[in-house]
Amino acid sequence: MKAKQLTPGPPSTHALIFERGDEAMEGLRAFTREQGITAAHLTGIGAFSDVTLGYFDWESKEYERIQLDEQVEVVTLAGDVALKDDEPDVHAHVVVAKRDGTAHGGHLIEAHVRPTLEVVIEEAPAHLRKRTDPESGLALIDPEA
Amino acid sequence: MKAKQLTPGPPSTHALIFERGDEAMEGLRAFTREQGITAAHLTGIGAFSDVTLGYFDWESKEYERIQLDEQVEVVTLAGDVALKDDEPDVHAHVVVAKRDGTAHGGHLIEAHVRPTLEVVIEEAPAHLRKRTDPESGLALIDPEA
Amino acid sequence: MKAKQLTPGPPSTHALIFERGDEAMEGLRAFTREQGITAAHLTGIGAFSDVTLGYFDWESKEYERIQLDEQVEVVTLAGDVALKDDEPDVHAHVVVAKRDGTAHGGHLIEAHVRPTLEVVIEEAPAHLRKRTDPESGLALIDPEA
Repeated sequence: MKAKQLTPGPPSTHALIFERGDEAMEGLRAFTREQGITAAHLTGIGAFSDVTLGYFDWESKEYERIQLDEQVEVVTLAGDVALKDDEPDVHAHVVVAKRDGTAHGGHLIEAHVRPTLEVVIEEAPAHLRKRTDPESGLALIDPEA
Repeated sequence: MKAKQLTPGPPSTHALIFERGDEAMEGLRAFTREQGITAAHLTGIGAFSDVTLGYFDWESKEYERIQLDEQVEVVTLAGDVALKDDEPDVHAHVVVAKRDGTAHGGHLIEAHVRPTLEVVIEEAPAHLRKRTDPESGLALIDPEA
Repeated sequence: MKAKQLTPGPPSTHALIFERGDEAMEGLRAFTREQGITAAHLTGIGAFSDVTLGYFDWESKEYERIQLDEQVEVVTLAGDVALKDDEPDVHAHVVVAKRDGTAHGGHLIEAHVRPTLEVVIEEAPAHLRKRTDPESGLALIDPEA
C-alpha cells in the first residue's frame, strides 16, 4: 500500500492505493497508527480476490463470518477511525459485487486486493473515542468520552 | 443520538453517533434542523434491527415500501441535505446486508439502530434548494434555485 | 447536468445534479475536464432508468458487461478522479437496488438518470496519476507517478 497526502495538514486527506495481494484491514490499521489518526472517515473502491465479511449476530453477540473466495468488485468501502485504548481503530464496512452483478456486504474482516483498492481517508482535528458497550460487548464510539 | 463537531466552523463536519432504538431518519432530520444546515453530504455505517426501504415506482410515481424485519449490517448510508421550503431536507439511501451476506438497498424511509450507527456529515457554506419536479412529483435539488 | 460550487476554491467541493436522460459517466467526465480536476473523490445517490455494470474478469483481463434495463435506485455511487495521460479520468463504482430491494453493483460503465442523480465531488490540491499496470492491463493510480 502506498499513500499520497492530498491536502496540507495535519489534519490531512490522504489517498491510499493498495496493490495486488495487500490485505486491506492490515493496511488501513498500519496507516492510521503510523499517522496517529484520532478521528477520520473513509470511502473507497477497487477489487478483491477474496473477502471475509462479518454479520453481527444479536443473539450470540458475535460476528458470523461469510467467506467469498472469488474475484469481486469493491463497489463501496466505507468506514471511520476512532481511538480504542488510545490507539486508532478502523471500522470498515464493504459492499462487493460478484460476476453476476449481485451485491453482498458486511463488516470488513479481511480481504486481499486484486488489482487495486483506492481509498480516500479524511482526518479531522478532533478525538473520537470508543468504549465497550455493555449490552453488545462491542467497542462503540462514545462522543462524550 | 449524540453529535460531536469534528472540525471548526461553521460550516463544520460532525460525527453523529446513534444508539440502540434510535430512528435514523428522525435523528438526521432533527440534527440538520437544529444546526440550520443549508447544504451537506453524509456517509455512515452501523447496524439496524429493522429497516423500511423505498423503491420509486416510475409508473405510479410513488415509493413502494420494502420492509426488512431482521438485524442487518448498514454497509453504506449515503445522502445529502438541501433546503425544501426553507427547511433542511435529508435525502438518504442505504445498502444493508443480511445474515447470509446478501445486500439490499433503497431510499431510506425508516430504520431502528442496533447497536450503533456512525454518520459523518460535512456541511458546506452554500445553499442547495429543492423544488418540485413536475414530471416525477418529487422535490429535487435545483442548483439554480 | 448542472453544477453548483459548494465551497470557495479552487480546490472546491461541487454538487452535480443530473436530470432525466443524462448519461452519468459522460457528465462526470465532461465536468472533470472542464474544471481541470487533478485529484478528487465523489459520492452520490439517485436513480437510473437503466445501467451497464462492469465486472473485471481476472482471466480474460476484460470487463464483462451486466445490463440492467429497469428503473433502479442508485444506493451508492462512489469514485475518484486521477490523471491519465494528463487528462482527468473518472473511476466510479455503483450499487443499485431493484424493485424487490435486492442490490446489484459493479464498475459504472454507462447509466441513464431518472429522475435525478445527486453527486458531491471534492477536489484536492494535489495530482494523482495513473499508469498502465502490466499485469492487469488497467490504468491504475500510482501515488509515486
